[in-house]
Amino acid sequence: MNQKQGRVTIPTDIDVIPETLKVMKRWGADAIRDCDGTDFPAELRDVDAKIYSTYYTTRKDNSWAMANPEEIQQMYLMTPFYTAKENQLSIHLMKGLYPDMLTPNCRDDIKRWWEVIDRTTGEAVSTDAWSYDEATGDVALKAVPFHDYTVSFLAYIMWDPVHMYNAVTNDWKDVEHQITFDVRQPKTHAYTLDRLKKFIEDHPYVNVLRFTTFFHQFTLVFDELAREKYVDWYGYSASVSPYILEQFEKEMGYPFRPEYIIDQGYYNNQYRIPTKEFQDFQAFQRREVAKIVKEMVELTHECGKEAMMFLGDHWIGTEPFMEEFKSLGLDAVVGSVGNGSTLRLISDIEGVKYTEGRLLPYFFPDTFCEGKDPVKEAKEGWVTARRAILRKPVDRIGYGGYLKLALEFPEFVDYVEDVCEEFRTLYENIKGTVPYCIKKVAVLNCWGKMRAWGCHMVHHALYYKQNYSYAGVIEALAGAPFDVKFISFQDIKENPGILNDIDVILNVGDADTAHTGGEWWCDPEIAASIKKFVHNGGGIIGVGEPTAHQENGRFIQLANVFGVEEERGFTLGYDKYNWENHKHFIMEDSGEVIDFGEGKKNMFALEGTQVLVQREKEVQLAVNEFGKGRAVYISGLPYSFENSRMLYRSILWSTHDEENIHNWFSTNYNVEVHAYIKNGKYCVVNNTYEPQETVVYRGDGSSFNLSMEANEIKWYKI
Amino acid sequence: MNQKQGRVTIPTDIDVIPETLKVMKRWGADAIRDCDGTDFPAELRDVDAKIYSTYYTTRKDNSWAMANPEEIQQMYLMTPFYTAKENQLSIHLMKGLYPDMLTPNCRDDIKRWWEVIDRTTGEAVSTDAWSYDEATGDVALKAVPFHDYTVSFLAYIMWDPVHMYNAVTNDWKDVEHQITFDVRQPKTHAYTLDRLKKFIEDHPYVNVLRFTTFFHQFTLVFDELAREKYVDWYGYSASVSPYILEQFEKEMGYPFRPEYIIDQGYYNNQYRIPTKEFQDFQAFQRREVAKIVKEMVELTHECGKEAMMFLGDHWIGTEPFMEEFKSLGLDAVVGSVGNGSTLRLISDIEGVKYTEGRLLPYFFPDTFCEGKDPVKEAKEGWVTARRAILRKPVDRIGYGGYLKLALEFPEFVDYVEDVCEEFRTLYENIKGTVPYCIKKVAVLNCWGKMRAWGCHMVHHALYYKQNYSYAGVIEALAGAPFDVKFISFQDIKENPGILNDIDVILNVGDADTAHTGGEWWCDPEIAASIKKFVHNGGGIIGVGEPTAHQENGRFIQLANVFGVEEERGFTLGYDKYNWENHKHFIMEDSGEVIDFGEGKKNMFALEGTQVLVQREKEVQLAVNEFGKGRAVYISGLPYSFENSRMLYRSILWSTHDEENIHNWFSTNYNVEVHAYIKNGKYCVVNNTYEPQETVVYRGDGSSFNLSMEANEIKWYKI
Repeated sequence: MNQKQGRVTIPTDIDVIPETLKVMKRWGADAIRDCDGTDFPAELRDVDAKIYSTYYTTRKDNSWAMANPEEIQQMYLMTPFYTAKENQLSIHLMKGLYPDMLTPNCRDDIKRWWEVIDRTTGEAVSTDAWSYDEATGDVALKAVPFHDYTVSFLAYIMWDPVHMYNAVTNDWKDVEHQITFDVRQPKTHAYTLDRLKKFIEDHPYVNVLRFTTFFHQFTLVFDELAREKYVDWYGYSASVSPYILEQFEKEMGYPFRPEYIIDQGYYNNQYRIPTKEFQDFQAFQRREVAKIVKEMVELTHECGKEAMMFLGDHWIGTEPFMEEFKSLGLDAVVGSVGNGSTLRLISDIEGVKYTEGRLLPYFFPDTFCEGKDPVKEAKEGWVTARRAILRKPVDRIGYGGYLKLALEFPEFVDYVEDVCEEFRTLYENIKGTVPYCIKKVAVLNCWGKMRAWGCHMVHHALYYKQNYSYAGVIEALAGAPFDVKFISFQDIKENPGILNDIDVILNVGDADTAHTGGEWWCDPEIAASIKKFVHNGGGIIGVGEPTAHQENGRFIQLANVFGVEEERGFTLGYDKYNWENHKHFIMEDSGEVIDFGEGKKNMFALEGTQVLVQREKEVQLAVNEFGKGRAVYISGLPYSFENSRMLYRSILWSTHDEENIHNWFSTNYNVEVHAYIKNGKYCVVNNTYEPQETVVYRGDGSSFNLSMEANEIKWYKI
Repeated sequence: MNQKQGRVTIPTDIDVIPETLKVMKRWGADAIRDCDGTDFPAELRDVDAKIYSTYYTTRKDNSWAMANPEEIQQMYLMTPFYTAKENQLSIHLMKGLYPDMLTPNCRDDIKRWWEVIDRTTGEAVSTDAWSYDEATGDVALKAVPFHDYTVSFLAYIMWDPVHMYNAVTNDWKDVEHQITFDVRQPKTHAYTLDRLKKFIEDHPYVNVLRFTTFFHQFTLVFDELAREKYVDWYGYSASVSPYILEQFEKEMGYPFRPEYIIDQGYYNNQYRIPTKEFQDFQAFQRREVAKIVKEMVELTHECGKEAMMFLGDHWIGTEPFMEEFKSLGLDAVVGSVGNGSTLRLISDIEGVKYTEGRLLPYFFPDTFCEGKDPVKEAKEGWVTARRAILRKPVDRIGYGGYLKLALEFPEFVDYVEDVCEEFRTLYENIKGTVPYCIKKVAVLNCWGKMRAWGCHMVHHALYYKQNYSYAGVIEALAGAPFDVKFISFQDIKENPGILNDIDVILNVGDADTAHTGGEWWCDPEIAASIKKFVHNGGGIIGVGEPTAHQENGRFIQLANVFGVEEERGFTLGYDKYNWENHKHFIMEDSGEVIDFGEGKKNMFALEGTQVLVQREKEVQLAVNEFGKGRAVYISGLPYSFENSRMLYRSILWSTHDEENIHNWFSTNYNVEVHAYIKNGKYCVVNNTYEPQETVVYRGDGSSFNLSMEANEIKWYKI
């Protein structure tokens, strides 16, 4: 059954030619790629494999950039807050920014494109009241004493942030700073198509153009010490220019303001409840980016090559779950797999011929060095990814970086060989099927499908103290037997019927963020439709501060659904008697002490709510019945196999379906069961690095005992 | 120097006549009192002491109440939230309320005085759309499905809440429920003056009428199981009637709405940022209450008696720090002393001849019973009170309850003898002076002097998990060598010069509460004036979430003053590098692990701020310079001697006055030094129950070593 070859991409370089061939054979690779900082060896041009070439649409052409400085990519930045001590104030624009990376744009009319804002009143300062001195780099303004001010300004990106990151991380010396140019602008647009054509002509051996990526880098800025200063994997701040913004104004019919992008310095990150103007801007960008991507893809096809997009770097405007994406005509998408969620971010993409996941670790010296254990990282990466692959596979896997570094770790090479083989087997077993889903689950927030699988994510797949207790829910879902949708409040407004096809709604995150919805819950249609959904038998699971916004006598707006409320001082006068912990179905597989991550302070249960876990008079877990429906409140749910099981049980309980738990089920939560009915197969998979014992239940409720090796996956016929 | 007699009040009863005389002598009591549930013995009428008689202005006259049911005191109540499941909804008014305590008022026009509110939209339901069935006690309304509704209604208080509390606590059987009548209403008003006159005539031996209290009980409601359901020691909900509200409307010139009192079910508790309408109502009530109190006081004086007010129970409308209070003509105020803050609540009152603190424990069976240790409670009570007495003494102390119970604990009687003597000594030493104050400190919130010393308090001096970390600051101040003011934002608006006479501002509490100010910080005048104050050299100390309100790119509105901000998801994209803990002057007396109480999650320091304590990447303590001024951020400060010292040091540091720390100072924070320059005395006081060693510094910086007995106070001449 095992296929010995295919579905694997490896990196190469001029210094590892024979090794590349050897590794290709061992790993069964059928594609070879170059990377940023590597060269594709001439000797491998005729190898029996697809050849990918990274293609940098927006950089690696400084001569063009320098010849056309007005078409260098720009970004909006805001200075820190400065307090005026008297009636004038001077603000140095570049404070806190890496000087070589950015140059303020004074070429365009700064009075039109910059904005000085009195952050004490929230109002823009009259353009007459400030000026910029290019020599000093300072904005001088007439101020009201003890008001705070910021300057929003445009700057050219003189060192591409990813190039800078790669250079800093790999300690590249004396490297020329690659300037980012803006493909959206007219001259560069025209040039780009010629440049691409020329590149293809110059690289006839290349089969796949791996675009890294298209036009606009996600927001990434460095400070004076070249440390990361600001990052938003979803950020649009570096997708702007007066040229684009004038088009935007024209199309929208209302004037543009820098503040639409600056957003008080929050840059419309995904925790912010999006404004109409920002959503207009995103949609505009998607449409405009799509037009030029399409041209480039068509040209690529005309030249007989495939077009593959890297889901990262300059990917802004190509959100793959949005309508425009399907029109691009791309052959493939490849992305980095940091965990199960980011795997689904790739594998759930529709409208391409294939998807590819770049597994971790990247062959960079930060991991492949003395004292690090790349095998361990690879195992963690693979087992985490596999859980999601079993729900929705990518079509290929691959690796990136310097192959030479990996070769110095023979155990790593051995382990990856196993991974590749295991991947091919499982792909063969599950391809073309939808795995068995026990429930339809919808994550409800302000973004819906636009941030599907990436909810709570700041930088790609990275841990933040404030997000892991929520991102854990998304990670659990990525590998769980549910049909998962991501819907927005706007979706419900536009089509209330969307709820008819959902079993359980999840609302996850902190109060007044886009993830829970904030004042959206004061929209009577939204609040009523969700209450109705639950009352009629739907399940709802809230994590953190679900539906929270202070208004109308409530903080948790659906307090009478969840049966919990948060004490913010306003209800201290009310005596609270409901503190007894109860045992419950949803905790039956959980240990003595459930890990709620950061948890939540000050939550209390209303009368009639069943408290499952309160600690020091703070409710961490509670359930409540509301009409025919059921609600579960969880204070936080960091990802673990144990917590994933608790979420699974919560979903079943909330839909009154406890009795169906023994359905493609493993009693041991470290082991999971996935069924592919159409293909007549199911697998049992040990997600841990230790042997496990479990009882496996089939879909008909019959069961058997099973011992599993560490990390093992076993395939069965139904 | 010690006086053997005076300044002490004791309770008596008919069953302890000889014992009363004996205890009087031992404790040096010069006043005797009765209590709720006791009778004053005829045999003691001629004793050589002042005789206090409790006088219940609003109860203990059910025949009057029943004969005038329309003048029974009313209160506003809100039902819980009910979700409509269809287009009609029935709400049972008395759900969750003790049935014998309250009777809905259908006598007055319910369509005018009740309100049904759609809490999903925040709008009142048309009075045509609902009706009340007196027989069932239900309001039926036309509803929008899945909207939430509440009913605000008036109810008569058929069992006075304090009488009920005393009856339940003391397990009184078959007691007639005392009805509360409303002295503000015309018939009862007239009757009250006659009744008072008659009472005085019937009790010629009484010297002091101890009014318990005047007209309106603070909010106190019991549930079906006679458990406390809602309490607010400052609550105005039980001070209403259509009669009063019509006057209010007329005087204010705008229509009254029940919602002004109901406040979404939050009942305008002191954590709520007060609305204009509620403040209007409070002011109106104070004025109107004052008028009738004045009449009663004058009558009392005419009859040759003193008028003493109990600061509690039906005290609403008599806030002693407000202007109207001084006009009442009262001779004295007595109140319960739960801690240092509540002592200052009494002792700081101006405009009366004397104040009296009723020390704990109350001689009730809950404390004076097998297994309890009233001596311990008395010690704790005394040492806590003494700290504040040494700053601003009450003129008398006293006890309440059943003397018989106390007599069963001879050690208690012994201990109180010591307390009384110690009190007289210290009173003698400090009377007429203002103790040495090293700084002028202002607590800034929405209430100012109206809630002076009672900030954060829900029920009198009680612990709440959500308030002790903040109330600890007030408690520390109550016994510290500072001139303490309580100012409101409105005070600053009306007189910005108020800041000129302040060294340090404190802003203490959770975000968006009246204690920190919420959107007041978006008033440019307020924000600018405080920044200016600090910039010019003022100190500022923020505890919890000072100045916090989400607006204009900030949560901590004075983030650039405090140098800290709270991560609410919106700034996750900003890398944070300032996590190193530093040693600092303000922590020099603190132990390894500072107790921040509940602390705060998610606080981080801005660049340049000096972090003193961060735990798990959450800043608990930090300092920052702003212009010539200094700011201290503390996440929480529960009261302890150690924390009190840290606050002391913070105040000194924030005013650049570190060098003056050895000024009337004890190196051991368990011991405090108070100087009374005018009287040429100072004392050193051991606040603990263990012996202490310390070095005492005098005002000239000279010092000496000192060993102190447990609990000892030593007096010295300057």
